[in-house]
Amino acid sequence: MRNIAIGIDIGGTNTVIGAVDDDAKIIAEASLSTQKYVQLNDFITALAENIRTVLSKCGEHTLKGIGIGVPNGNFYSGSIEMAPNLPWKGKVMLSDELSHYFSCKIIVTNDAKAATIGEMVYGGAKGMKNFVMITLGTGLGSGVVVNGQLVYGADGFAGEFGHTTVVPGGRICGCGRAGCLETYASATGIKRTAFELMAKYNTPTKMRDIPFSQLTSKDIYTFAMEGDQLALKAFDFTADILGRKLADLCTVISPEAVFIFGGLANAKELIVDATKKYMEQYMLPVFKDKVKVLPSALLGTNIAVLGASALVAV
Amino acid sequence: MRNIAIGIDIGGTNTVIGAVDDDAKIIAEASLSTQKYVQLNDFITALAENIRTVLSKCGEHTLKGIGIGVPNGNFYSGSIEMAPNLPWKGKVMLSDELSHYFSCKIIVTNDAKAATIGEMVYGGAKGMKNFVMITLGTGLGSGVVVNGQLVYGADGFAGEFGHTTVVPGGRICGCGRAGCLETYASATGIKRTAFELMAKYNTPTKMRDIPFSQLTSKDIYTFAMEGDQLALKAFDFTADILGRKLADLCTVISPEAVFIFGGLANAKELIVDATKKYMEQYMLPVFKDKVKVLPSALLGTNIAVLGASALVAV
Repeated sequence: MRNIAIGIDIGGTNTVIGAVDDDAKIIAEASLSTQKYVQLNDFITALAENIRTVLSKCGEHTLKGIGIGVPNGNFYSGSIEMAPNLPWKGKVMLSDELSHYFSCKIIVTNDAKAATIGEMVYGGAKGMKNFVMITLGTGLGSGVVVNGQLVYGADGFAGEFGHTTVVPGGRICGCGRAGCLETYASATGIKRTAFELMAKYNTPTKMRDIPFSQLTSKDIYTFAMEGDQLALKAFDFTADILGRKLADLCTVISPEAVFIFGGLANAKELIVDATKKYMEQYMLPVFKDKVKVLPSALLGTNIAVLGASALVAV
Repeated sequence: MRNIAIGIDIGGTNTVIGAVDDDAKIIAEASLSTQKYVQLNDFITALAENIRTVLSKCGEHTLKGIGIGVPNGNFYSGSIEMAPNLPWKGKVMLSDELSHYFSCKIIVTNDAKAATIGEMVYGGAKGMKNFVMITLGTGLGSGVVVNGQLVYGADGFAGEFGHTTVVPGGRICGCGRAGCLETYASATGIKRTAFELMAKYNTPTKMRDIPFSQLTSKDIYTFAMEGDQLALKAFDFTADILGRKLADLCTVISPEAVFIFGGLANAKELIVDATKKYMEQYMLPVFKDKVKVLPSALLGTNIAVLGASALVAV
């Protein structure tokens, strides 16, 4: 009889559920629309149903527990608080609600922390005691590991590196403030940069034919690889800012490595290597040439599902 | 027979040695000039002699060990590396050198981390699992405690919050870079600010009669308390920058409290309370009104000696 840990990644658009075995294999999966369920109760009911469906595909098994990664998920309280991109407002007691359906251990954390645990347990950070995980998606998520432990902080919300300030009074951020790192270093950040650069320079670029609502970071990457000067500049600007803020972070916590996950991390030279270059340039001398910057070893996988399952598997 | 732990605070100017008993009382003390000993060997010999003198005043005792706080002191290697304000260049194997004279446990850390341990063991942070210590002296030192453990990081040099960047390309810093927090928020930082303000504004102030080499942060405080508008502005600017950078730090590590130590921390309303005000203003909503900013409970004591002794006493 095999052990199964359920890992769940609740995103603003979709929720993915995976059944993970002791070998870190996702042996069954399901997904549902998050946006569709405006009422929390309806979402919980649908989620429970999908978990049952996934478990029914696992044969005879022991359920070790359910781990959930969700924006603004709180490890201590099992709740979601003030998540701007989820349909349910206020404080949602997620683990309590789900415990009406399942009697196993249920652990909640935020999505970037789930990814951090994924990297630590199954990825490139295996055996590392001090590292930083950066997830570049619509926003910038992060997880910090110190002395082998994920940093939750006094209230469980530590690790919001994406909301450190780059430019006081700068770009408006979804958090209600301005100038946050994620408005520069993320899939949407690089798009904003591309539009700023088109406004500033006269350099020709295919990007001038694509409206803001249509341009993606993947387009910018494609153009950059074709030699588009403005697209290359957008990547360079992004890496410069991320490198500078990582140099700051290294100064405080001195990690062994920084891992970068997310679509943008596929642009290895343009993001991962360029960020390392700028980080070294800004680094306090005593930390120079000590901190690795690496693409996640789990690129292309559902790292948050794996990491969330590891919350209850280990 | 009582237990004695030796705590040593090596500063750029002087070195202070204290014998601390189990009740955290400094029962004997000595000090020597650090600057005077250009040769490391001479310093070590003099240091050992002073430790023996201090111990000779303690009556019958058991020596638990020697704890040392020193700029750029490394907990892992027991060495000092690249300390700009100490006479000995390169890497100094401090604990190895001193172990030729004493066979007890010898532990080295940097001065701000020693102060952090002082606050944690004897001060306002007793029982706290997550907090930040800021020491405002000539520079800005810091210590970060996460999950009840001081953060040393991968290489032992974590906690250099004073060298995070405030203004890229800003004020020249002793570390060889520019725009570091400690060039703004420290005793010398507030003086630089005062001179910038005198250059910018025409407001009358007594500070215009004092040369740069003579003005102290204590003078600025005295003038501010007399209602000097420019001196008040210098404090406000300092608190604004420190508050902003602390909001950044809280976002990443979510501490329960921030403690401020050093001469400037005596300016409670102008530094501690003002920093708290600005920190809240810049804070990510989910952290608002959660993090205390407090003066060290050990203001006026030799916190680094106490903290260094605690390295070997507990």
